[in-house]
Amino acid sequence: MEDKFRCNCPITSAIDVIGDKWSLVIIKQMLTEEKKTFKDFMESEEAIATNILSSRLKMLEEFKLIIKGKLPENKKTNIYTLTEKGIALTPIIVELLIWSDNNLREFHSDLYAGEQLEMVKSDKEKFTKHIIENYKKNNGLQHAI
Amino acid sequence: MEDKFRCNCPITSAIDVIGDKWSLVIIKQMLTEEKKTFKDFMESEEAIATNILSSRLKMLEEFKLIIKGKLPENKKTNIYTLTEKGIALTPIIVELLIWSDNNLREFHSDLYAGEQLEMVKSDKEKFTKHIIENYKKNNGLQHAI
Repeated sequence: MEDKFRCNCPITSAIDVIGDKWSLVIIKQMLTEEKKTFKDFMESEEAIATNILSSRLKMLEEFKLIIKGKLPENKKTNIYTLTEKGIALTPIIVELLIWSDNNLREFHSDLYAGEQLEMVKSDKEKFTKHIIENYKKNNGLQHAI
Repeated sequence: MEDKFRCNCPITSAIDVIGDKWSLVIIKQMLTEEKKTFKDFMESEEAIATNILSSRLKMLEEFKLIIKGKLPENKKTNIYTLTEKGIALTPIIVELLIWSDNNLREFHSDLYAGEQLEMVKSDKEKFTKHIIENYKKNNGLQHAI
């Protein structure tokens, strides 16, 4: 894995892992849209291609940001769950949301606008905590995985 | 510019603009390493290729994250300065730093470790503000650009 990194800078190294067009989109879909299966990701509005999705899920597993498992009632379908390392990306995703809302509207007139965005901006710590707690509750994660 | 965006999700749209291997690295170099010129970026330890650097700088200008200018004493060399939109990426960069320090050491044994990282983690708001103020002071930015 060491050869994945360009240098010793922690910021650049984070970008080496999640600085691409899809990794954080997949994490966001898991965290805030209840996506869990390959099919869920395929059907999302971002419309990721099959081969790219496979390669990104593999990479996210290698860096222990997600783990692959099965549901007891359905042994055929893989489900993906965020680990603590993956859940720890939540503050980055919240900052992307705030930056986007404040800075991209002039380039993207259809950007989602809603009351929730005002809530995020008025108390981002609380919103971040809420997302994390909600995800853990919905996925039965009482302990670190 | 609208065709750059995959959908209306603000998080995905932020990733459409800065979700690549280089954009945030260049912003980080400007913000924390006093890099300003094409030559400065070329000489950085991340060792970006000329053609990629040209294309990224152009894209960052199009989204008004940086502006190109000249120094009064040297009319030949372009210097790049972060705009308010670019400076507003600082909280994202700080969160990448914290996440990296907490989560990538097992994969990257040479990751930079220093006292500064403890300072960041003990008060990230203060550290973020310090970076922004320092950048503005060093670049004579008293007002929004």
